[in-house]
Amino acid sequence: MRIHPECYPCFLRQTYSTLKLLTKDEELQETLLKEIMGKLAQYKGEDPPPKVSLVVYGTIAQRLGVTDPYKEKKLKCNRMALELYPHLKKMVKRAPDSLFMAVKVAIVGNIIDFGVGRAFKLESGEALEKLDLVVSHYARFRQDLERARKILYIGDNAGEIVFDRILIEEMRGKEVIFAVRSVPIINDVTLEDAKEAGIDQVARVIESGSRVPGTLLKESTPEFKDLFFNADMVISKGQGNFETLDDAHRAIYFLLRAKCDVVAQLLGVEVGSTLLIKGGTIPG
Amino acid sequence: MRIHPECYPCFLRQTYSTLKLLTKDEELQETLLKEIMGKLAQYKGEDPPPKVSLVVYGTIAQRLGVTDPYKEKKLKCNRMALELYPHLKKMVKRAPDSLFMAVKVAIVGNIIDFGVGRAFKLESGEALEKLDLVVSHYARFRQDLERARKILYIGDNAGEIVFDRILIEEMRGKEVIFAVRSVPIINDVTLEDAKEAGIDQVARVIESGSRVPGTLLKESTPEFKDLFFNADMVISKGQGNFETLDDAHRAIYFLLRAKCDVVAQLLGVEVGSTLLIKGGTIPG
Repeated sequence: MRIHPECYPCFLRQTYSTLKLLTKDEELQETLLKEIMGKLAQYKGEDPPPKVSLVVYGTIAQRLGVTDPYKEKKLKCNRMALELYPHLKKMVKRAPDSLFMAVKVAIVGNIIDFGVGRAFKLESGEALEKLDLVVSHYARFRQDLERARKILYIGDNAGEIVFDRILIEEMRGKEVIFAVRSVPIINDVTLEDAKEAGIDQVARVIESGSRVPGTLLKESTPEFKDLFFNADMVISKGQGNFETLDDAHRAIYFLLRAKCDVVAQLLGVEVGSTLLIKGGTIPG
Repeated sequence: MRIHPECYPCFLRQTYSTLKLLTKDEELQETLLKEIMGKLAQYKGEDPPPKVSLVVYGTIAQRLGVTDPYKEKKLKCNRMALELYPHLKKMVKRAPDSLFMAVKVAIVGNIIDFGVGRAFKLESGEALEKLDLVVSHYARFRQDLERARKILYIGDNAGEIVFDRILIEEMRGKEVIFAVRSVPIINDVTLEDAKEAGIDQVARVIESGSRVPGTLLKESTPEFKDLFFNADMVISKGQGNFETLDDAHRAIYFLLRAKCDVVAQLLGVEVGSTLLIKGGTIPG
């Protein structure tokens, strides 16, 4: 998908959130916001939204010398998620359909922000019980998974990655390749997060080549592209991957929550809806 | 108060909301958003936030030829509020302290957006029962009101103005001057709204000279400035007037809901809090 006009206020909101994390100096915040606004005013809007992060976080890195503003937050998210891991494993084991429960766990990982209150809710199982997939291609997902040998799983955020591990652990006997970003960008997963979450124990972890919070095929590594087009199944987590892969020429299972109006409208759902949807331009 | 860095994403969000109302053409929306972003990137940020509306709505008016994008919405708000008027009058009449209830009515007018659901809630009295003034200088307000002869009441939004009328009707025997903006700006009150709401039957209505959703003393008419500094009491409705008058050199009673983080932090309250607060730099 390409940038929608509504994305611009959102880019600026995200810029401010990051600046606030990095400096208390309001004059500096304002100077940087304006520098980024000036660049966005000139931006050719044909790209998918995640590509704009190169402008936003690139400028911040250049001016403040911070290339990984969410490093601490990510570490905290991974640790909190790991604490929940044994409990979630039990829930999946006990469920009548363990694979379906593991899918729900993986999507919940995309929803929660690992604030204390929410984490507790999750512990009580409430979030999982209430989770309703507004669109669910689960039957097809299960069928395709049974037949698949090689699966490419494209990761999304720190914390969430522990929940992805639970889904991958339900794919016994399959060759799973887990793709992470090649550089730190917002709270997206990198090699470091994959190790912290123990993904490397259940899948082969590769870098996709991505420097944005999504997956731009044009900028992916040859290894990633080869896997993307030749794996039996591709699973894409989160909105950023959806925004960059929705028009890719192969079938993809998208697991995501529609977090903004623009994506929700594109998918024909309400904001906040959770989906397991078979997409891509050749759904096969 | 001066513009805070956090205001910029908000300016852009407001810009988009208005553009969406005026055109379905996304290319045009994007072009105008970028033109306004470019101007904001160059903006000298020493002004109170409402002054930025000259850039936002000025550009929109210039490019789309629409000087009053909220005209219809305002008319609808006034009509809906007028339908509630008899019910609210009864509530005020029955209350143990009618003035206090009228103050609450006037503040509720600043909260509701006149969507159907909310209006019904109001009809049942629920919104008024639950309304809690986080900061209340009501005792002083009542005392000052008793002594005052000439009162300047600075209006805020359409719809809300009907609720202001109810408060003004509790100021029996006082000379009340009601100030409106001199041009249409967002959903702020103009002479037309004052007539629709019947304010002209209970107060003398004047234009403040303001072309922004607030009150910039430097740009006010001599008549307004004279009244502002010489009235026995000044009542200021809403956040826009607060943002522009909070450091004015006289005592002012601000009735408002803190609608954003920046103003809430300045006032030391949570976002969404409602206040009746005696402010101004010489609270006297």
